[in-house]
Amino acid sequence: MNVSIICHILGVALEVEAAFMTPALGIALFRGEWTAVAGLSATMALVLLFGEILRRIPVKRREYYAREGFVTVGLTWLLLSAFGALPFFISGAIPSYIDCFFETVSGFTTTGASIVPAVEDLPMSLLYWRSFTNWLGGMGVLVFVLAITSSSDNSGDTLHLLRAESPGVKVGKLVPRMRRSTAILYAIYLGLSVIMFVLLVFDMPAFDALTTVFATGGTGGFSVRNAGMAAYSRYSQTVMTVFMLLFSVNFTVYYLLLMRRFRSAFHNEELWVFAIIYAVFALSIAVNIRSLMGSFSDALHHSTFTVASIISTTGFAISDFDAWPWFSKILLVLLMFMGACAGSTGGGIKVVRAILAFKIIRRGVRRTIHPQQVRMIHMDGEVIEDETADSVSVFLLLYIMLFVGTLILLAFEGLDFTTVFSGAAACLNNIGPALGKAGPMLNYNCFSPFGKVVLSFAMLFGRLELYPMLMLFIPSAWKK
Amino acid sequence: MNVSIICHILGVALEVEAAFMTPALGIALFRGEWTAVAGLSATMALVLLFGEILRRIPVKRREYYAREGFVTVGLTWLLLSAFGALPFFISGAIPSYIDCFFETVSGFTTTGASIVPAVEDLPMSLLYWRSFTNWLGGMGVLVFVLAITSSSDNSGDTLHLLRAESPGVKVGKLVPRMRRSTAILYAIYLGLSVIMFVLLVFDMPAFDALTTVFATGGTGGFSVRNAGMAAYSRYSQTVMTVFMLLFSVNFTVYYLLLMRRFRSAFHNEELWVFAIIYAVFALSIAVNIRSLMGSFSDALHHSTFTVASIISTTGFAISDFDAWPWFSKILLVLLMFMGACAGSTGGGIKVVRAILAFKIIRRGVRRTIHPQQVRMIHMDGEVIEDETADSVSVFLLLYIMLFVGTLILLAFEGLDFTTVFSGAAACLNNIGPALGKAGPMLNYNCFSPFGKVVLSFAMLFGRLELYPMLMLFIPSAWKK
Repeated sequence: MNVSIICHILGVALEVEAAFMTPALGIALFRGEWTAVAGLSATMALVLLFGEILRRIPVKRREYYAREGFVTVGLTWLLLSAFGALPFFISGAIPSYIDCFFETVSGFTTTGASIVPAVEDLPMSLLYWRSFTNWLGGMGVLVFVLAITSSSDNSGDTLHLLRAESPGVKVGKLVPRMRRSTAILYAIYLGLSVIMFVLLVFDMPAFDALTTVFATGGTGGFSVRNAGMAAYSRYSQTVMTVFMLLFSVNFTVYYLLLMRRFRSAFHNEELWVFAIIYAVFALSIAVNIRSLMGSFSDALHHSTFTVASIISTTGFAISDFDAWPWFSKILLVLLMFMGACAGSTGGGIKVVRAILAFKIIRRGVRRTIHPQQVRMIHMDGEVIEDETADSVSVFLLLYIMLFVGTLILLAFEGLDFTTVFSGAAACLNNIGPALGKAGPMLNYNCFSPFGKVVLSFAMLFGRLELYPMLMLFIPSAWKK
Repeated sequence: MNVSIICHILGVALEVEAAFMTPALGIALFRGEWTAVAGLSATMALVLLFGEILRRIPVKRREYYAREGFVTVGLTWLLLSAFGALPFFISGAIPSYIDCFFETVSGFTTTGASIVPAVEDLPMSLLYWRSFTNWLGGMGVLVFVLAITSSSDNSGDTLHLLRAESPGVKVGKLVPRMRRSTAILYAIYLGLSVIMFVLLVFDMPAFDALTTVFATGGTGGFSVRNAGMAAYSRYSQTVMTVFMLLFSVNFTVYYLLLMRRFRSAFHNEELWVFAIIYAVFALSIAVNIRSLMGSFSDALHHSTFTVASIISTTGFAISDFDAWPWFSKILLVLLMFMGACAGSTGGGIKVVRAILAFKIIRRGVRRTIHPQQVRMIHMDGEVIEDETADSVSVFLLLYIMLFVGTLILLAFEGLDFTTVFSGAAACLNNIGPALGKAGPMLNYNCFSPFGKVVLSFAMLFGRLELYPMLMLFIPSAWKK
């Protein structure tokens, strides 16, 4: 393990984090939020100091393999969260450090699970920072895509942060050069964000519009209103529904659309399956909640919003879906695992892995019926290699194993099964609100500090597609 | 698909079923339970007639491949249940045919889930038949083992009912000849049953001892008392605990012990993992329920019994574990999926598959860290072939897919998540009692007729290790 280069990269990441805190500090100074000024400036000083120490560690060797990449990603997310939590803690806005850590992990992992009972009590600068972590998290996730895109033309001097490990995030090669890919993805991300901001800002305060864009872009889900997204008009909610779905789509599709390669853009199995699942769930739930709402169009408004919120793993709420009939609630819990499309800012297991799992199962069953026939798995007209199929199977089994492990650890909380199961699902899949005692109108304070730490790690495991966090716990990954 | 030979075998199976109803008819006549006499004799006549018609269908071809084997097994279990339900229906003991079907499927699949609110109201002859289906189901499951054992020396005239499809049930070749293997397994089954009967009959009425043996041997779980197994002494309950565990062990172990091949018998990873899981769960739950019980030894008595009941997939209850703290309840729900050892009469995914899943995941993770190294999966000192590992992955993914499908269908019931999730788990894994509205002191009448049909199929899918039932729903399996 090349520790020195990992430290170097961590140092750079921390210094970037300090820079990203500047706008929040500006708001705090402008508004005279002095506790927040203290919290933010002290944190920035500490982060810069620590970052500088790490960055100055001399890099002895240049070797940088897959396992270094995984460990770097895992540690970056962990360290950024640990330090990003400090402004809340030092300012006293959130008294317990574990709560601050939970909230910040939830932000960077674009989960949106919260332990803050009334967000409007927080200083505006800290609310800004909190929402901004959602958007930064979304940017970070896009790094995966480009790292994987670049891994195929991995020359000596190009860092490959992550090997194309899991085919769930395998995307078409955008452009040969990694830097240009990064720029394109970030431009799409920024472009969508700007359009959304423009659509929202006529209908709500600019601060609300900005933070809502942050939360939607990263499919994070943090809100700056106690009432959540119910605080806004139906027009704004509809804009959110549309943009939650747009941010759930593989960003390659937008690139292809911009290039006017329409046929390639829509020759995308994952996109169609995603659309069908969305439509079926939204419609079923609309019918189910019809009697609770004023009219079918009201029911459809609430169901399209909520299903988009869950499948995109955003986690916004405009209604207390924990009070809906069990039919809808069970469908929503199951949908939590599905998640968005690969190559988007959404979490979950991703639609493409669900499709591949189905095809792997189908091939296995056919082999049983006709043992002589050789069967290939196809996706978007291309043959999926056995190695890829194997790694999807391993990923899904590992996902289930880690989910069961989370449930066993959370069993110690003494909370009911619905809360524990949906809470674990909502954190591992980076949704946010769950059911029961962690429902959309409540928060994660029903969990003990131990439970919050477990859920924080579940969020990190889920967001980083398991391996980067797993490496931190496997001794053999650290050996030479 | 060779339909004629399948019909022929089904005919024979039905005639055997009619023969197995004779003791129940004898009891009904002896006790003058005339409605039961009517129900049983009418059913026997019908079954014999239908069986004879099927058996006489001329067999045109002798080809009998894996898919014919699967379809035969699936249809046999389905038909035996459909006809086995008739005595309850014709006698009027259970008014709804769907309820009768559910109860009989539950019997033959050795699940033990019940829709009878007060079993003591049933005629004794029908109670006998009900418990006897548990024991017959256990015998049927042992057929798998021998079918698989015989598949390796599959000569032209030996029927192989099932190919060694899933390695979960791959056991060491007992003896070369299938007939002798059958005889040995049945002798062990019978021998254990007789020993248990002798141990129980001094402590309870002979009828109770016999039906308890039926329910324990098949790891079924039907009781003839309204109070369930709480009706009996602590001595009897302890005997049940021991025998539930004994019937969960791979029967090959007993054969090896009888052959005095002690080293081979205990060189068995699955057995040790099973023992460790049992001990850890029983102890954790004992500590957790300590305050509810009079003493720690009471708590240990209840936890050892209940954990044995769940892991063996028997489903006996001596206490209302639905009233236990959530820690215990969550552990029990997760344990439901584990199940017993392969080659036993227990259900669930089987310990060996869980071990293999862990090893498959570990290999996948190691491949990610060290892509160059070639890794083998070992089990009991032998190398597991890739094909076997693949089929375990497919089995587990299919298991999860079918479980999720069951949850979606049961969502229509409008019941709470705990009841639906634990009910689906308890049926798919052939346990019996679940949590919530289907808890050990309640029954499955909280489900609608539609839900009962869904759960009946879940029991059949689980008991037959998915494939035989799946084949019935795949059109391509029926093509030439």
